[in-house]
Amino acid sequence: MGGDNAPGVVVQGAVDAASESQTQIILVGHEQVVTEALDGRAARLPITVHHCEEMVEMGESPLKALRKKRDTSIGVAFDLVKKGKADAVISAGNSGATLAAGVLTLGRMEGVDRPAIASIVPTDTGPVVLIDVGANVDCRPGHLLQFAAMAHAFATVCLGIQDPKVGLLSIGEEGSKGNEQVRLARELFQASRLNFMGNVEGRDIFGGKAQIVVCDGFVGNVALKVTEGVVEAMTRMMDRELSGSFWGHITKAVTGKTLRQIRREFDYEEYGGAPLLGIRGVGMVCHGGSSAKAIKNAVKLAAQYVNSGVLDKMSLQLSAVGDLSAL
Amino acid sequence: MGGDNAPGVVVQGAVDAASESQTQIILVGHEQVVTEALDGRAARLPITVHHCEEMVEMGESPLKALRKKRDTSIGVAFDLVKKGKADAVISAGNSGATLAAGVLTLGRMEGVDRPAIASIVPTDTGPVVLIDVGANVDCRPGHLLQFAAMAHAFATVCLGIQDPKVGLLSIGEEGSKGNEQVRLARELFQASRLNFMGNVEGRDIFGGKAQIVVCDGFVGNVALKVTEGVVEAMTRMMDRELSGSFWGHITKAVTGKTLRQIRREFDYEEYGGAPLLGIRGVGMVCHGGSSAKAIKNAVKLAAQYVNSGVLDKMSLQLSAVGDLSAL
Repeated sequence: MGGDNAPGVVVQGAVDAASESQTQIILVGHEQVVTEALDGRAARLPITVHHCEEMVEMGESPLKALRKKRDTSIGVAFDLVKKGKADAVISAGNSGATLAAGVLTLGRMEGVDRPAIASIVPTDTGPVVLIDVGANVDCRPGHLLQFAAMAHAFATVCLGIQDPKVGLLSIGEEGSKGNEQVRLARELFQASRLNFMGNVEGRDIFGGKAQIVVCDGFVGNVALKVTEGVVEAMTRMMDRELSGSFWGHITKAVTGKTLRQIRREFDYEEYGGAPLLGIRGVGMVCHGGSSAKAIKNAVKLAAQYVNSGVLDKMSLQLSAVGDLSAL
Repeated sequence: MGGDNAPGVVVQGAVDAASESQTQIILVGHEQVVTEALDGRAARLPITVHHCEEMVEMGESPLKALRKKRDTSIGVAFDLVKKGKADAVISAGNSGATLAAGVLTLGRMEGVDRPAIASIVPTDTGPVVLIDVGANVDCRPGHLLQFAAMAHAFATVCLGIQDPKVGLLSIGEEGSKGNEQVRLARELFQASRLNFMGNVEGRDIFGGKAQIVVCDGFVGNVALKVTEGVVEAMTRMMDRELSGSFWGHITKAVTGKTLRQIRREFDYEEYGGAPLLGIRGVGMVCHGGSSAKAIKNAVKLAAQYVNSGVLDKMSLQLSAVGDLSAL
């Protein structure tokens, strides 16, 4: 039910995923609305509809909404996972509500104080996992190390990155740079067994210096939204500049297509969703403006997540960093 | 002496500024090195060279370097302002050292607990002042309101923006969103007489929702560096995509030029420098990779800054927000 173009685009992505990979899909939402969107396409596909009356709207406070409404699509979806009737939840709706419903229904993994949202950023040199991108706005240094441990398991098992390098997002490479949180976290990272390569800067996220970039959810969310803003602004500027000249006008057809392609890459279409790490199960947060392709790829990534045994690997990583609840 | 391409590019920018606007330039640095770079061009221009033996290198700790070396170019430059022999300092070198030398030599304005670095971000709808972009990594809510007051005076007087709208950088528009610092700052902003339009998100920096965007220096620096990283990545991706097709190859000549133009816009070439707000005088921090045009435009902006009486206006704004040292 969630997302800027729901349920149409979300249902289309689910139909595509079911057609391509025979993944079994349960569409959780208002039966009549979802069935209309399906328009008969579920007949030959492994798709079922699970009815629920309500949903968490975009502007709502997640916790309040989940407490007040007993039968929301996101709450029911995680309940299906808890009851063993589904393996993963994918949502393009209110990401705070997805996080809250995941934590409330499935609980946190052992050794995790704060579940986090990881975003997979496409770069020239392969995917980079940016964690946290919005789940935790005020973090202690120990939380950052837990994020790194969870992302390490995810990156190796689900993305196939061998021994990923871990960077701490700061404003200079030197250890003296950064705010208090980052300076203290750096010491914890150095003492850990992670492949820690030191501080990285905002520009390095896209340069492939590290495959895992760790920050608190406030900074990570700003970084992600700035990325979106720059991509949009550059697209507009290219359009304006090219419209102003004869040759520009001629070339716009070609560059326009290329720009749209690049923009979709930055919109996380390739991986589709941002995994919710640290809960006892698999949850995937999709961009509100997700395309059908993004939803399809999120289903693919979730299936990989479920089948990979990453949660066991994550438990190992978490016990390796130890109890950080006081740090 | 500072900057990735110093002294050549910096001297070129100074020569251009002196030629175009007859601004009097004092080049502070090692006389022999600077004179060589000038290559006789100062003869008919209002350019003089002020010798000093040392400089703060990029990797050095600003405070340590300024304490140890008595005769650095950045220290001497601010000293010339203090003695009334110059009106403004422009540097493409170590920005921490520029900030430290400015504060140590000229002191803070009354009502300013933390001087800050403002960056002027070019957008479709005109310039946006992002403050702070790196001077203060750990801020209290009251500091953010001072940043807003200083930026307000700068935006109205130096950039000619009428009653600029002020936004607080957060991760959602609702007041409940954001970290503790931002949630507390929001209350101060709402109680102030600023034209406060609420929280803005990272993507809104480039959308013209607000003309002043306020954040702490850690977050602002990450935002600025992410912007650089995305612009670089998009340039590389465009190049790669276009190289792969016949029409793309043909159009690359045109788009390449356009991309370089856009990239320079984002590299703050248009305004050249980021003003240092809150010190008793005018200081301008330039990007290390500044072009000669950026340096020239920084001189222009500094001259405007000096001639505009902005410091008086800033004092008024600061006294309007009152004593915030405890907040």
